[in-house]
Amino acid sequence: MLLKISDSSCCPTCFLQLVLLPVPTVMAGLFQRALRLRTALRCLYDYSTLSRSTATLSPVDFHRPFLTCSSEQVLASTRKLHAGAEGSKVSPSAAPERLPFCRVTEEDLAFFRKILPGRTIVDPDLVEPSNVDWLKSVRGSSEVLLRPQTTEEVSQILRWMVTKSTERCLSSHQTFSHVLFSSYSYCNSRNLAVNPQGGNTGLVGGSVPVYDELILSTSLMNKILNFDSISGVLTCQAGCVLENLSFYLEERDYIMPLDLGAKGSCQIGGNVATNAGGLRLLRYGSLHGTVLGLELVLADGQVLDCLSTLRKDNTGYDLKQLFIGSEGTLGVITAVSILCPRKPKSVNVVFLGCETFEQLLKTFQLCKGMLGEILSAFEFLDSECMRLLNTHLKLPNPISDCPFYIVIETSGSDPTHDAQKLHNFLEEAMTSSLVSDGTVATEEAKIKALWSLRERVTEALTHDGFTHKYDISLPVERIYQLVTDMRKHLGNQAKSVVGYGHVGDGNLHLNVTSPSKDPALLAAIEPFVYEWTASCRGSISAEHGLGLKKRNYIYYSKQSQAVALMGNIKAMLDPKGILNPYKTLPDNLKQ
Amino acid sequence: MLLKISDSSCCPTCFLQLVLLPVPTVMAGLFQRALRLRTALRCLYDYSTLSRSTATLSPVDFHRPFLTCSSEQVLASTRKLHAGAEGSKVSPSAAPERLPFCRVTEEDLAFFRKILPGRTIVDPDLVEPSNVDWLKSVRGSSEVLLRPQTTEEVSQILRWMVTKSTERCLSSHQTFSHVLFSSYSYCNSRNLAVNPQGGNTGLVGGSVPVYDELILSTSLMNKILNFDSISGVLTCQAGCVLENLSFYLEERDYIMPLDLGAKGSCQIGGNVATNAGGLRLLRYGSLHGTVLGLELVLADGQVLDCLSTLRKDNTGYDLKQLFIGSEGTLGVITAVSILCPRKPKSVNVVFLGCETFEQLLKTFQLCKGMLGEILSAFEFLDSECMRLLNTHLKLPNPISDCPFYIVIETSGSDPTHDAQKLHNFLEEAMTSSLVSDGTVATEEAKIKALWSLRERVTEALTHDGFTHKYDISLPVERIYQLVTDMRKHLGNQAKSVVGYGHVGDGNLHLNVTSPSKDPALLAAIEPFVYEWTASCRGSISAEHGLGLKKRNYIYYSKQSQAVALMGNIKAMLDPKGILNPYKTLPDNLKQ
Repeated sequence: MLLKISDSSCCPTCFLQLVLLPVPTVMAGLFQRALRLRTALRCLYDYSTLSRSTATLSPVDFHRPFLTCSSEQVLASTRKLHAGAEGSKVSPSAAPERLPFCRVTEEDLAFFRKILPGRTIVDPDLVEPSNVDWLKSVRGSSEVLLRPQTTEEVSQILRWMVTKSTERCLSSHQTFSHVLFSSYSYCNSRNLAVNPQGGNTGLVGGSVPVYDELILSTSLMNKILNFDSISGVLTCQAGCVLENLSFYLEERDYIMPLDLGAKGSCQIGGNVATNAGGLRLLRYGSLHGTVLGLELVLADGQVLDCLSTLRKDNTGYDLKQLFIGSEGTLGVITAVSILCPRKPKSVNVVFLGCETFEQLLKTFQLCKGMLGEILSAFEFLDSECMRLLNTHLKLPNPISDCPFYIVIETSGSDPTHDAQKLHNFLEEAMTSSLVSDGTVATEEAKIKALWSLRERVTEALTHDGFTHKYDISLPVERIYQLVTDMRKHLGNQAKSVVGYGHVGDGNLHLNVTSPSKDPALLAAIEPFVYEWTASCRGSISAEHGLGLKKRNYIYYSKQSQAVALMGNIKAMLDPKGILNPYKTLPDNLKQ
Repeated sequence: MLLKISDSSCCPTCFLQLVLLPVPTVMAGLFQRALRLRTALRCLYDYSTLSRSTATLSPVDFHRPFLTCSSEQVLASTRKLHAGAEGSKVSPSAAPERLPFCRVTEEDLAFFRKILPGRTIVDPDLVEPSNVDWLKSVRGSSEVLLRPQTTEEVSQILRWMVTKSTERCLSSHQTFSHVLFSSYSYCNSRNLAVNPQGGNTGLVGGSVPVYDELILSTSLMNKILNFDSISGVLTCQAGCVLENLSFYLEERDYIMPLDLGAKGSCQIGGNVATNAGGLRLLRYGSLHGTVLGLELVLADGQVLDCLSTLRKDNTGYDLKQLFIGSEGTLGVITAVSILCPRKPKSVNVVFLGCETFEQLLKTFQLCKGMLGEILSAFEFLDSECMRLLNTHLKLPNPISDCPFYIVIETSGSDPTHDAQKLHNFLEEAMTSSLVSDGTVATEEAKIKALWSLRERVTEALTHDGFTHKYDISLPVERIYQLVTDMRKHLGNQAKSVVGYGHVGDGNLHLNVTSPSKDPALLAAIEPFVYEWTASCRGSISAEHGLGLKKRNYIYYSKQSQAVALMGNIKAMLDPKGILNPYKTLPDNLKQ
């Protein structure tokens, strides 16, 4: 039986009576109502066939490479794969020319094998999955995958890349004075480039090599170093998978302050490097607030120990902040300490339908006021997303068809109080005709089932065709206007134009699909989408980062002086530009 | 009548009955209890004579200069004022030698008068209060106070300081090629230094000039630029006083995410520049998470526009983070956008007494679990603090004498739910004998009265004699051990050794007083306090910053590589070192 909350108990008359009754009577009434609500919740339709765990992003299959051509062919075709919107004209998202980094030698491999015995991978079949991103939209041609287990090993790798290779060059080709007085570009050409890689779940081509950069994977750096159950501070290596950390903490009555669809594969180091947002940001804030410390290895191999576990520390500049969201271009994150909230004693999820986006926004305002401190997520998807979920993943719509759907989550410390607050909010939302239908869940399996409707949209899109993904921040009242305008702008050029995302954070995920790659469609979308966003002072990448694909669009969201300063910071921390080259910063900055 | 919660309704027997009863009976019982609790709260002793507003720090009185000697005398005595612990030996907190900056000329003044008509202050009596810090512990000898109203004016001031003065030098002393090939130190000597100043409520000598740096006050930059009532994002100029912003927001059903004792004088720009913590950090997190955007003027006069109002923006490095907590040494903050929480509908404050610090910590753990999402502050003070409040400010102790006192604040959206949670927590705390006495407040005046017991400790200390202030972050279970150890270590050398602070953040304010300045006492305290802190990987400045006084102690909390990197950042952003010189970074780094 599927519970609909649009039952007679929520009629406007009842609500008015409620308001006018004296307080004790109201409370008694509310308790009866809450009880009815909670009893009803137990009858919620069983979504047991839909498991939240199946909604997590799968890593690229190690045994089924995306392309079977040789690495030489791949290298040659890399730029073509990134070909621009108009075919002949190179798109701003295309890879730039390869920079004059060294190519890996037998001597390099001998060194790596010495410090990483059995963990220096050169078998093309095993390296291949790390060359391809999760979306299978970009690929590199690296021939070496390094899998360190310790910070010291990462340090040794980078120290070799910037120092030893220069020494080798000196001994074979040059005198020291020759190097000393030669140009910067020569020095640059004597070094190896590196692509730091976490769970490889990024969506902007930031997590795979562009050419033959060595891949430095943090996957084996997966140890939890400490958990302080008094302060709730977790300290762990960068390669810990987010979901594993969540399981570990839940056993100890805590949770991670972030949660995202890719949690089954993504790693905390990558989360921090990309300043991942996700589903809990509304409640627990960004990683700039929750990350208390980082350990990093800089481009020259130096270990920077900022692994504080203190909530407050005003001794000098907060260096770790620079690395949060720098996408591996300033240093390699090797360990993280993070402040974790207590596990809520009560979690409820509501799935609601709205007729207009304006009503959805009013529901958000009402929700913030009435659910207050227990509100932990306010997400939305449009009817086009629901169509894709139905069509491609066979997920049924749990309520009647509506133009917009909302997922609200509450997390609190008292199940009775939370149910009451939720009940009052739902009654008001129904009475005011802000929502037209809805269903609620309090049990874990059912909560997962409702969440999967929001979390699996990304997966459904991959089945719809070639997907153009945009991750936009806007003033919250404008977020859906972009979807509407894009539909009008594209007419019938696109297969699907869908919008979903985090209303609470003003973050829209706009996706446009076509049956196959279509340069004309891309030319119609870009730069239209970026210009539209810039006109509202929005961000062209809310939480995905810039990576390779969006690096040259940075000026739509950032002032040129700010971008120039970013270039100076990069030059200061990585003067030879070996860390994740071609990413984050635009091509017109010297890297 | 003074309500004590140690009444018979909270006996162990009642609590056990509560646990064993079926849920509906318990809920009915709790409602009766909550009602009794709330009725009782209304009888709370009236603290109307104690107003929270009187607890705010007063700015230095503009008409009563601290020292009446001439600026020449002051300049000569500056280093003496900062004299070290052992008299003859210069303390690490003493001012270093004056750097070779220009001295202000009539030409400079003519320029400043042109761009700041009537706001270029040279009357010594009017400049004087800006030369002296709130504690009257350090003083500069600036002869010029600049009071810009706009970002453009700040930009013009700094542009003049780094550019025009060089041009002047060229015309009067040098050829261009002479300058071009001269040393860095020569260029440095051709520039004016500046001390950016907000509300001048800092406690580490960071907010006043050390020598004759021009004072750039943001006091007239006090306009609110925008408030978005949907997103809760406030955008304002840097000189807005924190309390004024709070009043503005409260009228609009929002609050500032930070609150501190100095709110009546401190400015938001200064709060951000010093990464102020305060009383709400436990609930709303640090400014690294709540500040969404900053507008800055860099040392060369360039305006850096990072004034985003978006919750999420991953387009390149998050530059604004560098300036949060940089104490005006990297740029002048001219505007701030900040995410503000909804005003809670219900606020309660509890003042409790504990027999041991261990019990206090257990109370904190219990509180986090039982109050959960409504807990907004957990502060403490020791019996020595209470003695000073009684003696110097005539504030009575509202409960019976205890070794430790706790101030707990809850903020929530439902008064009934909050009262219930609080009641349950208090009952459990009493039943478990964690607290021995307590009183609660729900009305604003009474809440302010209880809060003043915590907020006015700083003020009480100023009446106790010369105060040595330490602001330490430690693992929470160790914070009071430092006070105990310091008392043992000092024996009868000190007049008072007191501890108070933010338990929720692991932040201890350790204060040691003596009848007058006592170099021998200082030598006994330092470096003992820093070594003790470093041995626990604590922070020697949790929220006050380093300023002038603590700059050379940075190595107790930061690795030398990290400090060196800070130096590189300073050199990159302020190559001539004109911004707030002698502050934050240690003397052994070239600034």
